[in-house]
Amino acid sequence: MSQQPKSQNITKIETKISREDREKMMGQKGVTVWFTGLSGSGKSTVAIEVDRILTNRGAVCTILDGDNVRHGLNSDLGFSPEDRNENIRRIGEVAKLFTETGIINLTAFISPYRADRDRNRQIQGEGDFIEVFVDAPLDVCEQRDPKGLYEKARAGIIPEFTGISAPYEAPEKPEIVLNTGDQSLEESAGIVIAYLEEKGYINKA
Amino acid sequence: MSQQPKSQNITKIETKISREDREKMMGQKGVTVWFTGLSGSGKSTVAIEVDRILTNRGAVCTILDGDNVRHGLNSDLGFSPEDRNENIRRIGEVAKLFTETGIINLTAFISPYRADRDRNRQIQGEGDFIEVFVDAPLDVCEQRDPKGLYEKARAGIIPEFTGISAPYEAPEKPEIVLNTGDQSLEESAGIVIAYLEEKGYINKA
Repeated sequence: MSQQPKSQNITKIETKISREDREKMMGQKGVTVWFTGLSGSGKSTVAIEVDRILTNRGAVCTILDGDNVRHGLNSDLGFSPEDRNENIRRIGEVAKLFTETGIINLTAFISPYRADRDRNRQIQGEGDFIEVFVDAPLDVCEQRDPKGLYEKARAGIIPEFTGISAPYEAPEKPEIVLNTGDQSLEESAGIVIAYLEEKGYINKA
Repeated sequence: MSQQPKSQNITKIETKISREDREKMMGQKGVTVWFTGLSGSGKSTVAIEVDRILTNRGAVCTILDGDNVRHGLNSDLGFSPEDRNENIRRIGEVAKLFTETGIINLTAFISPYRADRDRNRQIQGEGDFIEVFVDAPLDVCEQRDPKGLYEKARAGIIPEFTGISAPYEAPEKPEIVLNTGDQSLEESAGIVIAYLEEKGYINKA
């Protein structure tokens, strides 16, 4: 479901190595594990723990999050609805590049709009996109407030803050739901790992 | 040399797995091998052959080229100087994400402007960026004309075509020069592989 580029002068070049060749060589299947949820819900924390477990098992993984994307690729974008939309679009396209290389790609973005996430699911294609709803209640997230952002949002210092002054649209049919308000980090990461094993993205430990 | 993002609310999160951990696990060092040269000079052809050889040796590689980038991430960009600039900037940032994951990342873009390539070298950092000048003479490229683009450019159907109606600024200090007008594909790919071995990005075969 790639878009038509502005130029029609881009020719398809066949590589000699297919995605399947790469996956076979690495002993895994490329996939994007898309964590979505409120600020402070634990998206990055769970993604980092899953990355640790998988890499120690010899899997090739990467993490895309606000730190490495907002400071680089998307440093020209702010937090207006249009910029959030373009932010998530570009992340989806980069995620696809990693996935097609056979890499297990963990993304941790609030990604509050359902339409943006659904578009990325379409871009990736069926089986290449696992939506993980990190479902911690707002009051839990606000109590944690690890970066002090809720306090600033309540004080009006940060405008358009998801859950406070901007909407969060919960996933309707996520592949995985994590209740990080109740579950331990080990439990949450374990649920994701078990899903990846069960569906054959990684070998069983 | 990351840019400051528009938002100051992005916090640095430490992953538990370092770049070095990933590189050790894969037995290679992450790097961007940036092929630059005229249309028809053989950038993609050499990149695809290097990818084939490396992957068959067990290395984790990827190729970024017009096909997978212009149809996806940069489908909103055309070929004006500003759009070419943004095209190459985004590719540089994506290349950095792959490099920091420890992957050998082969990029094949005309990338005609020296300033754009030099900026990407800065973004990546010393040792993470290998510039490969694919130096085939214009008349050789035009004679090959594998996509029929030179013919269209000469006829004025394609405006701003590098080498015909738009400039190509040759690299001043590329790490590698390939004379694909004289060398065979095997020779050209072999020069790149030998460089990667010599500098310790990959193990010797």
